[in-house]
Amino acid sequence: MSPTQAIVCHDPVEGKRQWILEPISIGEPNEYEAIVEMVASGICHTDLGCGTAPDGTPGFPVPKYPRVLGHEGAGYVRAVGKKVTKVVPGDAVLLSFAFCTRCHNCQYGAPGYCAKFTELNFVGNAAAFPGSKAEPEKQIGGSFFGQSSFSQHTRAQETSMVKVTHLVNSREELSMFAPLGCGIQTGAGTITELAQANPNDKVAVIGLGGVGLSAIMAAKLRGCRNVIGIDRVPSRLKLAKSLGATHVVNTTELTDSLVEEIRKITGGSGSTVTVDATGVMPLIQQGIEFTANQGKMILLGVAPMDAGLEVQVVPYMVTGKQLMGSMEGGVYPENYIPQMINWYKNAKFPVDKLIKFYPVKDYLKAVRDMEDGVTIKPILLW
Amino acid sequence: MSPTQAIVCHDPVEGKRQWILEPISIGEPNEYEAIVEMVASGICHTDLGCGTAPDGTPGFPVPKYPRVLGHEGAGYVRAVGKKVTKVVPGDAVLLSFAFCTRCHNCQYGAPGYCAKFTELNFVGNAAAFPGSKAEPEKQIGGSFFGQSSFSQHTRAQETSMVKVTHLVNSREELSMFAPLGCGIQTGAGTITELAQANPNDKVAVIGLGGVGLSAIMAAKLRGCRNVIGIDRVPSRLKLAKSLGATHVVNTTELTDSLVEEIRKITGGSGSTVTVDATGVMPLIQQGIEFTANQGKMILLGVAPMDAGLEVQVVPYMVTGKQLMGSMEGGVYPENYIPQMINWYKNAKFPVDKLIKFYPVKDYLKAVRDMEDGVTIKPILLW
Repeated sequence: MSPTQAIVCHDPVEGKRQWILEPISIGEPNEYEAIVEMVASGICHTDLGCGTAPDGTPGFPVPKYPRVLGHEGAGYVRAVGKKVTKVVPGDAVLLSFAFCTRCHNCQYGAPGYCAKFTELNFVGNAAAFPGSKAEPEKQIGGSFFGQSSFSQHTRAQETSMVKVTHLVNSREELSMFAPLGCGIQTGAGTITELAQANPNDKVAVIGLGGVGLSAIMAAKLRGCRNVIGIDRVPSRLKLAKSLGATHVVNTTELTDSLVEEIRKITGGSGSTVTVDATGVMPLIQQGIEFTANQGKMILLGVAPMDAGLEVQVVPYMVTGKQLMGSMEGGVYPENYIPQMINWYKNAKFPVDKLIKFYPVKDYLKAVRDMEDGVTIKPILLW
Repeated sequence: MSPTQAIVCHDPVEGKRQWILEPISIGEPNEYEAIVEMVASGICHTDLGCGTAPDGTPGFPVPKYPRVLGHEGAGYVRAVGKKVTKVVPGDAVLLSFAFCTRCHNCQYGAPGYCAKFTELNFVGNAAAFPGSKAEPEKQIGGSFFGQSSFSQHTRAQETSMVKVTHLVNSREELSMFAPLGCGIQTGAGTITELAQANPNDKVAVIGLGGVGLSAIMAAKLRGCRNVIGIDRVPSRLKLAKSLGATHVVNTTELTDSLVEEIRKITGGSGSTVTVDATGVMPLIQQGIEFTANQGKMILLGVAPMDAGLEVQVVPYMVTGKQLMGSMEGGVYPENYIPQMINWYKNAKFPVDKLIKFYPVKDYLKAVRDMEDGVTIKPILLW
């Protein structure tokens, strides 16, 4: 057992999340884990949802508190379990989600649809970190997305690790890439892998947080004919423009309906690729409507758990529209993260425009800034 | 005006379809039409739906009666309009659906999703054939799917024609290929073009009429790991086996649920490509359920016009399933029909096992045999 420090998510008090930066201990890795010393940890809306949503309702399946969240980690391997072959101590790693490698979904295509996704990423390990001497029975949950990267030292699953030792030149660069393994790959992969967008495509992205803006960057990268950003926050629309959006639509300033607006921009056809990064049902419904015939409507934002969508079978069939869900962009992180790094180095994927660094001690401010829309993607530096 | 004969669909009487083989006249082709002398006409369930369904309810948008139906024609060009460039008199043609060539959907991908599909294929031309001398005001509707191939001579749209002069050796061969342009391309194209099925795929086809069995043939052709035929008629299941189905499921003889049965056959994963060729909502719902994560559920059968499907957004998203509609298999007939002919010639696509020839005068028996399930695909010989 070694001492370390982590942002521990405790039982919510009066519906408010309780994230406390405090000293904890860490034990030995199991045979498929490594000990990673974190350099930087991105914060994602999923962390907020799992750490009690702002209104007090937990949004995702979670183990009991206390637990360590965080799933966009970047750091250096310090020790490895007996069966780990992917990395050795000293390697630089970016951390992504965990998957079983053996189920139909891992074998057939993208591991983001792993049959054990919930178990491995949301449930994790309820006793990853030992209890304190004073309260030995109060073990702390970890292995959130196989990493629990809100800890300065953590036990990371081998499947979550992407080795980038030879791809990054400095601690600073490694820090900037922390969010590649979740939000950014999800947005970009949805465009390049799931939708396989090409220059003929007219792409519309609803919701311009980190995921949506990554989709915008990827659509620009693919040279899509229209790249349309939709949001209600002017600063995000401006950022989308600077990342390559050919059009932006402020939903608070529409004179026509959103559907008419998108049809107008796309020359009447509608968007051939529509990405919803909001989970807001009325926007999803409009998105399906303004998607062109034979176009793809991709569900990416987390809708309310009980939300249902009514599809009219015959009209849906004759339009040839395709409805699909994106989990982690349908990518295989070990292939896709190095690709994104190369795009960045070739000045085609300016992730630096999305991020803002905060010292770990300012984690509450970082969360507030993300919730307020001031910061797209906060990264905590250890 | 020249005399010819056609099966004319008159106003239904007491909800029953009134198809009468009778002499009619035919006028000159317009500039984008050709006069085709029919050799053979396949009958498809869509003809029955548009000619008044068995229970008396018209199933599709139709112009007023009388009209000539038929949309699986095969014949020889006898005259061409001024602007026709695709064929000359004497050419052998197979007839498929009509499309505008200019809309987003024709340009972007498959013309089966043409923005004017309903207008060009279902509505057609209400005055394609002149009225008789006795009743000159009673013009007969035509251009059903750009062809109205239940007439011995007809005006066919240029977009509906696929020239096969150098691909067929005889009138007999041409006759056998009559249904390639609708039912068969729809079933096969759904597998090879829309689903892009490969040897790793586990294909399940619900409903083994002409379309479903064509999907089975195409899945066999693509070497798919599982090819599962689902129906309740033993003779169809037997035929599916002989066409390459690795498994057949008789829904009247299930001990487990259909969902459990398909999961069992597919080693637990479910089917990676599911095709519904029935339009029956409870089967569609089960089909979505037994489709594997990251699998494709393809809607092909015509559901009731007002049928709705409730999609649970979050569970749908995390499974990565894809819901899509197939119109004419997503194919471009001028490319796909020659390909199917080549497959047939290479003994990989035994369409001859699906068909039965009837002299035109026996058209009512042909319809009855199709409705009773005795004949999969009746072809009328002129």
